[in-house]
Amino acid sequence: MTGIPPAPAVDLTGLTAERAGRLRKALSEAPFDAVVLTTPESILYATGYRSVAGALFRAHRMAAVVTADDCWLVCPAADTAPAVDGGLPEDRVVPFGRFYFESSGPTPLTGVADRHPDVYAALRTAIEAAGAGLRHGVEGLAGDPALGAAVGDGAEADATGWAIRVRGLKLPGEVELLRYAARLAEAGVRAALEIAEEGVTEQALAEAIATTMVAGGGEPRFVVATTGPRSALSDAHPTDRRWRRGELARFDVGCLYAGYWSDIGRTAVLGEPDTRQAGHYAAILAGLDEQIAVTRPGVAVSEVFDVAVRTVERKGVSPYRRHHCGHGIGLAVYEPPIVSPGVAVELEPGMTFCFETPYYNIGWGGMMVEDTLVVTGDGVDLFTRSPRELPVVAI
Amino acid sequence: MTGIPPAPAVDLTGLTAERAGRLRKALSEAPFDAVVLTTPESILYATGYRSVAGALFRAHRMAAVVTADDCWLVCPAADTAPAVDGGLPEDRVVPFGRFYFESSGPTPLTGVADRHPDVYAALRTAIEAAGAGLRHGVEGLAGDPALGAAVGDGAEADATGWAIRVRGLKLPGEVELLRYAARLAEAGVRAALEIAEEGVTEQALAEAIATTMVAGGGEPRFVVATTGPRSALSDAHPTDRRWRRGELARFDVGCLYAGYWSDIGRTAVLGEPDTRQAGHYAAILAGLDEQIAVTRPGVAVSEVFDVAVRTVERKGVSPYRRHHCGHGIGLAVYEPPIVSPGVAVELEPGMTFCFETPYYNIGWGGMMVEDTLVVTGDGVDLFTRSPRELPVVAI
Repeated sequence: MTGIPPAPAVDLTGLTAERAGRLRKALSEAPFDAVVLTTPESILYATGYRSVAGALFRAHRMAAVVTADDCWLVCPAADTAPAVDGGLPEDRVVPFGRFYFESSGPTPLTGVADRHPDVYAALRTAIEAAGAGLRHGVEGLAGDPALGAAVGDGAEADATGWAIRVRGLKLPGEVELLRYAARLAEAGVRAALEIAEEGVTEQALAEAIATTMVAGGGEPRFVVATTGPRSALSDAHPTDRRWRRGELARFDVGCLYAGYWSDIGRTAVLGEPDTRQAGHYAAILAGLDEQIAVTRPGVAVSEVFDVAVRTVERKGVSPYRRHHCGHGIGLAVYEPPIVSPGVAVELEPGMTFCFETPYYNIGWGGMMVEDTLVVTGDGVDLFTRSPRELPVVAI
Repeated sequence: MTGIPPAPAVDLTGLTAERAGRLRKALSEAPFDAVVLTTPESILYATGYRSVAGALFRAHRMAAVVTADDCWLVCPAADTAPAVDGGLPEDRVVPFGRFYFESSGPTPLTGVADRHPDVYAALRTAIEAAGAGLRHGVEGLAGDPALGAAVGDGAEADATGWAIRVRGLKLPGEVELLRYAARLAEAGVRAALEIAEEGVTEQALAEAIATTMVAGGGEPRFVVATTGPRSALSDAHPTDRRWRRGELARFDVGCLYAGYWSDIGRTAVLGEPDTRQAGHYAAILAGLDEQIAVTRPGVAVSEVFDVAVRTVERKGVSPYRRHHCGHGIGLAVYEPPIVSPGVAVELEPGMTFCFETPYYNIGWGGMMVEDTLVVTGDGVDLFTRSPRELPVVAI
């Protein structure tokens, strides 16, 4: 398949070690000695382990206990073997629940069933193994009192924001994975526009996008390809609706690559745009371009929001009502900081964002450009490479 | 692409109405007058609405309030326009949170922002609209006390099991969608075996599977394609490991089609199997075949488990330790009843199951056959059609 970007040359094992190193360095400066991570993203960050079941079942729970020089993964018994295969030592994986592995040689993996009844009991074992007298930060503590009870007296602080801040400043390898995931999504939209013609269905456009993501090793996770009035619906599944001459199509698509997300947006028109389409597109693109132009270290995130809304309105889409004009991205598709009013967080090199200025007009249509980038020492490094003008599909 | 099964001729709008009818009929026989549904699956069942964001964000919440003759969807403001596009009346969609739609004509969708601060406040509004004095069953009540507070005095019962039982007996249209999703997964595995040769990577096998699912309109959701010793890992992501002569490959794959899941398993060997591979495969296949053979209305689910374990052991894989040998499937990939010891639920026509007899031996490999079927009046209707013998990839 043409158009697939070259795969990133990132050593995932090395990246896991680098992330763990960054976590330990942050821990050395934190008001606690150890941290209990409870989101799949933070656990992947710390351990390199990404659970297949974890993405399928809402009730799936894991935890990681990270100290200055050690790490335990608390996981369902079924997750133990793949976690060990991924590089975790057998004696650092603490299982709960029932699952059976047999073995052709001696391994503790044959005894993972029924070691603990639930995640909390297994977490208590991991906490004890980590050592007495430690002060623990706990991700998600405020939302789950049972976590605090499991950690015990050492549960000193909710580490949710702390974990997000550590994960927020991306390592070079993470930047390359996010760049690749974004380019794969972009290649998907390009493939959709290549097969587009009058009467093409939303589903056919979506299929072209997903096929491209898969061909590049990505896992498609959302493929919004909506045409005509449906382009105004914000997130909606593609249907058998046919794209007609003069109509907008809006694409908002993302995939996973090695655990890292993409989320990009593009708009196109079938045939030449009318004045309103061209004018509104110019306005939202100007808003996005101004966001990119003001982005550099030290600028408040709220300013990136404000400049987007001001610019889009000044260029003629008024009122332009938005609750956010972008978000962080990484191991989660939305990561704080959200590009929203009043967010005083200052931009730092290594932060990765999606910036976007979508416009949804029921009955008329919707349009957006959404780009992904990393903040650099003096501005931005843009991941996406598509032409900026409104793509016109010739008919 | 060859091998894609013909798409099912199911009218999704009609199916939504049929599901709602079944829900209402069950409600007329329930110990409550109305039901508050809170899982994405039950909400899709009742309303036909499947949220894109709902599959991406753990914090995404919705609810549906269903009475004898009406229905309200409680959802984030961003979900209102796609829900209305899907057929829900504007005045039956109760939004919370902040999101802005503009419009080229009069519609309440321009005013969905900030109507309610959260799902609970919006749910209170929907409950009031449904009428005073109703007794409510509430799905997920036990796990979320705030739900009970939002519903108020009428929150009489936890309706989690009730909703599962209603969804558990599939309508003919649901059976056809599940059959198609299963055949799409099966076609994926077939495509993987067609490209297989010595040295093919797990990732290339997974790509063939996902591409096939996408080509048939499916959304790939898990693609376990593991080779050699990695086939023993239960669920694990594919890697760049190469499949070698004499090794097993294990496939456990599923996709979504119109909200319905598939989950099938297959095993293959590259070149001729050795005695142990052939013998173990014969044993696990015999276990699965016996499950299918005993399945008919009135049989206890636990018996389907017991016969699987007894048969696999008798055929020479001993001990054969399993916590389950299958599960219901539908709008969720795992639905009760789980095919486990002690589950006294009796099989009924219309129940859909995945039956499976996986075997995971660390260091040696893993194997499974997992089939999907619907219980009929006198036995089963098997969805999967692959040959039953161990597929041998010629080299």
